[in-house]
Parts: sequence; structure tokens; C-alpha cells
Amino acid sequence: MGIKTIDWKENSIKIIDQTLLPGKLEYLSIRDLKTLWSAIRQLKVRGAPVLGAAAGLGVYLGIKDSGAADFRYFFQELEQVIRYLGSARPTARNLFWGLERMKNAARENKSRTIKALKKILFTEALKIIEEDRFACRKIGFYGAKLLKNGDNVLTVCNAGILATIDYGTALGVVYRAKHDGKKIKVFACETRPLLQGARLTTWELKRNGVDVTLLCDNMAAVLMNQGKIDKVITGADRIVCNGDAANKIGSYSLAILCKHHKIPFYIAAPFSTFDLNLKTGKEIIIEERRSSEVTDLFFKKPVAPKGIKVFNPAFDVTPHEFINAIITERGVIRPPFQKNIAILGAKI
Amino acid sequence: MGIKTIDWKENSIKIIDQTLLPGKLEYLSIRDLKTLWSAIRQLKVRGAPVLGAAAGLGVYLGIKDSGAADFRYFFQELEQVIRYLGSARPTARNLFWGLERMKNAARENKSRTIKALKKILFTEALKIIEEDRFACRKIGFYGAKLLKNGDNVLTVCNAGILATIDYGTALGVVYRAKHDGKKIKVFACETRPLLQGARLTTWELKRNGVDVTLLCDNMAAVLMNQGKIDKVITGADRIVCNGDAANKIGSYSLAILCKHHKIPFYIAAPFSTFDLNLKTGKEIIIEERRSSEVTDLFFKKPVAPKGIKVFNPAFDVTPHEFINAIITERGVIRPPFQKNIAILGAKI
Repeated sequence: MGIKTIDWKENSIKIIDQTLLPGKLEYLSIRDLKTLWSAIRQLKVRGAPVLGAAAGLGVYLGIKDSGAADFRYFFQELEQVIRYLGSARPTARNLFWGLERMKNAARENKSRTIKALKKILFTEALKIIEEDRFACRKIGFYGAKLLKNGDNVLTVCNAGILATIDYGTALGVVYRAKHDGKKIKVFACETRPLLQGARLTTWELKRNGVDVTLLCDNMAAVLMNQGKIDKVITGADRIVCNGDAANKIGSYSLAILCKHHKIPFYIAAPFSTFDLNLKTGKEIIIEERRSSEVTDLFFKKPVAPKGIKVFNPAFDVTPHEFINAIITERGVIRPPFQKNIAILGAKI
Repeated sequence: MGIKTIDWKENSIKIIDQTLLPGKLEYLSIRDLKTLWSAIRQLKVRGAPVLGAAAGLGVYLGIKDSGAADFRYFFQELEQVIRYLGSARPTARNLFWGLERMKNAARENKSRTIKALKKILFTEALKIIEEDRFACRKIGFYGAKLLKNGDNVLTVCNAGILATIDYGTALGVVYRAKHDGKKIKVFACETRPLLQGARLTTWELKRNGVDVTLLCDNMAAVLMNQGKIDKVITGADRIVCNGDAANKIGSYSLAILCKHHKIPFYIAAPFSTFDLNLKTGKEIIIEERRSSEVTDLFFKKPVAPKGIKVFNPAFDVTPHEFINAIITERGVIRPPFQKNIAILGAKI
């Protein structure tokens, strides 16, 4: 709303450099794959749905100047680009979903000329973007029905405008409820180590007129105990067949605290986040990131002794039994998840 | 062990400036009350048991140059000093315990000369220090029996050498177990917002040869779920009649997570931390600290938008039903706490 997290402009991928927020709103023009790979790895562009779009545009960026004379060579180049981009981050499903989708688009059009194929792939990438925009609006529509006027919603990380094309998943639900005239307050967990909650969620909510309060991750339970939280809504990075969901580290903890305090725990995510090849969350690969994210506060001042051992998983898995509902663009999925994900997942 | 967190040297209170750790081990000589008040408020000197010692030495610092000619005036001055120091931080019981103890020492010796009284108060302050040293050793002795060879212990904040005179409460248990030949690994929660875990706990454990791994507060549940945590031990800032215990923000959260994962949750604290005037944790005043602790990473770089609302309680209360045992210098207290605290609390 008012900003474009990712876009195609002047033969390059234009993104907001999210590591500079909230201090600076600065756009980057990415003209080569290596820069894109680093931008994904360093979280300059981040958020599961945005990574789907980055995958689409990234594949096009990688093959648009291909000199391949026939499909076989062109497809080899494409696969190389896909493997390379896929190595940037392991957990977010949308990245792989976007890459696979581009691969399929090429495969299904193998009889076309290379020139035509390039155009098809560009169109496919733009379609991913358009579909995400639509999916987020639908997630907002379905999710907002779960919120009551006066609700206080707690969230973690950033599943908002900055994580999607322009509306958000978890925060899209809040934006839509607000648009419907409901008064909603948001409590944003700062989300250590990289502080996406403090830096991004408070920034975009404030900008869009939503009442937001920042807290450290270890303070959420106190608010719950004081009766100040009505619902918890988070995004997701990968949701599997039985409803287990990988999301930003800290989500599992919040889900347990919700169960204890009898607070509904909702996940909001488009179907592009679902990985129906995996049966349970145990199969999800969790990205471990470097120690300095923890020991050097936001990459600057060291706050722990040099060389100290660090545990730094970027995500955790919330078992489905802690999830009250998954809000998707196809409707709200309730338990039993195994059955209900399969039903909605089969729909086109 | 090897360092003195607080001491009386050359007519001044000598403390380690704990805000500079782990970068610098620097001592401060405090010669006036205002500087001491600020040092307590800014957590240059921190940790519940140390605050008891700071109270003792602080009262002496405040009255040692008194020109009062009789007890009435002297006692008025003393009460003023006590009120002033008591206003520095509201939650830690030991601060008030130390102040009351000094007041009682004066009251019980009202017939003595002012000169003699000053000496008595100095001796009383040194006694607080000596008793804390002894209490910590006993806590270590009793607590170490709860640890098995190979145990992984998770802790929050710093309840170690730096929080006491020289041995620690929660970490004293670890030091003693290690001394007894047990292999113990510690997982230290970084403890937002002021990172006492990252800065102080890892520093002193590493220095004393204990295997330590740092994690962000929101990662503890994952370790528990992976079966990597055998026990959680924390210090406490105020423990009341029914066993409810105020401690660093995040402790309540850990206690719930322990219950869920069937991990024992222990508190280690001397009797000077007990407040038997309060019946339940609801009566404990929780210190709310300033926003910038959360928004400006360790007082430096801002990481949240300017003027954002912040929730920043320094402590939370863990209800007694989540506590498996309280390790004190008089022995390990198990439920029912109400009864067992009263029994041990009555002993001299």
C-alpha cells in the first residue's frame, strides 16, 4: 500500500533494501543473479511470498540474455539459474515454488522459439506477482472475519506489505479488519536476531495508521497473562501436509504460550507456502544462520565475548496441534488439517 | 572467583562497571550517593544479591561523613539515605533487605556514640558481603546435588559471579557441580533488552572454563523440543510467601515452556531475596524501564521507528506452580512452598 516491495523496472529487479529500514527507505536495482542471490541471503529482500516473486523475476533475469540456440541448451541454463537461486535460503517454500513454476512454464513451452520462451517466462514472473497480490487480498478478506472490533493481535517477524507484494498475510488480515472499520491493536515481537518486528512491522503498521506496540520476544507471555492479547497471527515459510508450519524462530514458543493462555494461534499464508511433498514438519530443513547475527547486534557492536558458541536457527516448526486455523486465499483451514489441506490444496 | 563484583576500597565502593562487559573489565570507584544511585539505576552494578551489598555499603557511604551530634539527627540522615537508594530500582528485594538491615543495625545501637555507630554500620555492611559469599557457596552445595553428570542447563540473565559477591546463585550451582567433577553444559539466553546473558553470563562462564552456548530468548523452546535441555535454573529478584518469584523478564515464559516439555524449572536464591511481607506475586511491583532499551540496540543504533510505543517490563512473575524447587542456602525448598518457605524462613 503505497510502496512496492518488489518490481521489474528498466530491465532490472527493483527491491526495497529491507536491511536499511526503518532508517532509510531505499530501493535497489538488481541487474545480475549474483547480486540477487546475495540480496536474498542477506535478507535485503525477504518474506516468504516476496521470495516467490524474486524467484520468478530472478529466473527471467538469469535467462533473458541467454544466447542458447535450442531448447536443450536453454533449459540447461535455466536449470543452472534455478539451482543457484535455490541455494540462497533453504526453508522458505515460496522460493522453490517460484523456481519450479518457472521451470514448468519453460517445459510446457519447449516447442516455442527461445525468444518466445523468454517472453513467456517474463509473463509467468509477472503472473506470480499478480497472483500474490490477489492471494493477500483474499487472505485479508477471510482472516478479517476472525477478528473482532477491539481485538489485540500479537505477531512475530514481518508478514506484512514488506513480506509480500503489497498487502501482507498476517498483517493483511489486520489491514483488512481495519478497513472494515474494526479497531485493532497490534503487539509486535521484535524478533531476534534480525529484528524484523522492530524494524519492519512497526514501520509499516505505523505508516498505515495501525496502533502498534513493540516488545521484546521474551515479554509476550506477560502480555498474554495480563489478558492483553486476543489472537496471535503469524505468517509461515513452509506448511506441510499435516499442517505443521515452519516460521520465524520464536513462533513455536508463542504457539505453546497461546495454548497455555487459551489464545487462538493463527497462521496466514498463501498456498504457494504449502509443501505437499512433505508429510510432517520433521522433514523441513531449518536454515541455521551465522553466529554474528546474535553476537554482533545487528551486524555492528559486538555484545558477546569473541568466539562464543552460538545457537542460531532462523526458523522453527510449530506442530499442527498448536495451530487453530490456517488462513489462505482459498479460505480458512481448520483441523483436521491433513484432510482439509488436501481438499483445498486440490482445488485450482 | 578471581574478580570482586563489589568491594570497599580507599573510602569508596569499588564495583565492576557491568555495562562495559564483555568488551572491557573496568572498575569504578564510587565516592558519593548520587553516583551510586545512577550506577544502580543504569545497571552498572546489578544482580539481586549484589544489590544487597550495594545497599549496605551505600548506607555507610551516605552517613560516614555525617556531622550529626545525636542519634535522632543521625537516624534522620540515615533514613533519607535509605529512601534515596531505595528509589533506584523497585523490584529487587535484596536492595530493600540490605537497606532495612542497616536501619535495624542503627536502631539496635541507638545508645552508642555516633562514631561507634558508624563503625557498627560499616561492620554490618561487610557482614552482608561475607554472608552473601557464604550463602552462594551453600546454594552451590545444595543445588549441585540436583544436577547429574552430562546435564545441559539453560539459564536466563546473569545469576552468577557478577550478580553476587563471588560465586553466583544459579551459576553457583553449575560451578559447584563442575567442581564436583560433573560435566555440565550451559545454554545462556541472551536476555533482551539489556543482554545480560550474552554479555555477562557467557563471559564469566567462559572465563571459568564452563562450556557455554549463547542463544536468543525466542530459541529456547526449540532446544527444549530437541531434548537438549535437562534443567532450567534462574536466579530471582523477589520471592514471596507462596513461592511466586519475580525474576528477569522472560523467566515466566521459560517456566511455561519447561512445564510443557517436562523439564524441571529451578530457582536459586538466598533468603535475602525472600519477601515474606507479600503473600502472592500479584503484590510485587514490576519495574518498567525506558523504551530506548528496546528501540536503541544497547543504547546505540536505533532499530525501530522514532516514537514507537514500547512495552518494556524488566521483570515478570513466575507463579509457584511452575517452580519445581527453590535452591537456598538453607536447603532446597520443594512444594508446598507456602508451608516449606515458612519453615526454612523461620530458622536463623
